[in-house]
Amino acid sequence: MTTADWRRARAAAARVGHLATVTPEGRPHVVACTFALEGDRVWTAVDAKPKATRRLQRLANLRAHPRASLLVDHYEEDWTRLWWIRMDGPARIHEDGPERERGIAALVIKYEQYAATPPPGPVIALDVERWTGWTGDPGGSVPSEA
Amino acid sequence: MTTADWRRARAAAARVGHLATVTPEGRPHVVACTFALEGDRVWTAVDAKPKATRRLQRLANLRAHPRASLLVDHYEEDWTRLWWIRMDGPARIHEDGPERERGIAALVIKYEQYAATPPPGPVIALDVERWTGWTGDPGGSVPSEA
Repeated sequence: MTTADWRRARAAAARVGHLATVTPEGRPHVVACTFALEGDRVWTAVDAKPKATRRLQRLANLRAHPRASLLVDHYEEDWTRLWWIRMDGPARIHEDGPERERGIAALVIKYEQYAATPPPGPVIALDVERWTGWTGDPGGSVPSEA
Repeated sequence: MTTADWRRARAAAARVGHLATVTPEGRPHVVACTFALEGDRVWTAVDAKPKATRRLQRLANLRAHPRASLLVDHYEEDWTRLWWIRMDGPARIHEDGPERERGIAALVIKYEQYAATPPPGPVIALDVERWTGWTGDPGGSVPSEA
């Protein structure tokens, strides 16, 4: 398994990610989120009703600065077993239409919690331009990169 | 226990945080990190040797945009049990001196992994101006806030 394959597999399987954006004022912002990976596309949805989404900070941020950074990582007390993967690129908001439907479908397939109630709000599509990653296990079978 | 007390206790006990900063070019950046909380001060260190830290993105980011956002959160498959706490404020880098020593001491007390080898690099001090949080358990004993 190559480093790129390992990153994709790990990222696709991760249950939670951390999404960073930049506020209209240029300040950092970070949220925990569910997401689904399809190739180099990350889908993440907003678990808020449409009327509430105008106030949602991450959406205001992306309208002002349309780039996002998604981190998935593993923590445990044995620090030789830490790893992280980061996906960076431009991100767009899909309020409706076929792109939103595709994103919702990917999320419902991944998370059974969404089966009864799919996310009602907009979908964010992050197109990964850059993959980075690191693992603390230099002797393991997992490719390592600083 | 008030919401503020709960947030402080949860944040202080969390073993890993996610630190967002803004790159010199205005792009979002996020890393997983260890940290220690003292009042409204968050300490986090750089696990890199001093010579390597000039290349470290989070330090370059803070030099250009001296604000950070630290998220601690809990994920599990029962989504009624999710929670997160976010700490936002200005952040400074301490390359040496008593502030760096104080931060390193707080980290060594919290993480036994640092006892043998304290972090060799600079320390970041985030002064929390704003605490925000949320929990998915509306009926629990934990105060909830959207």
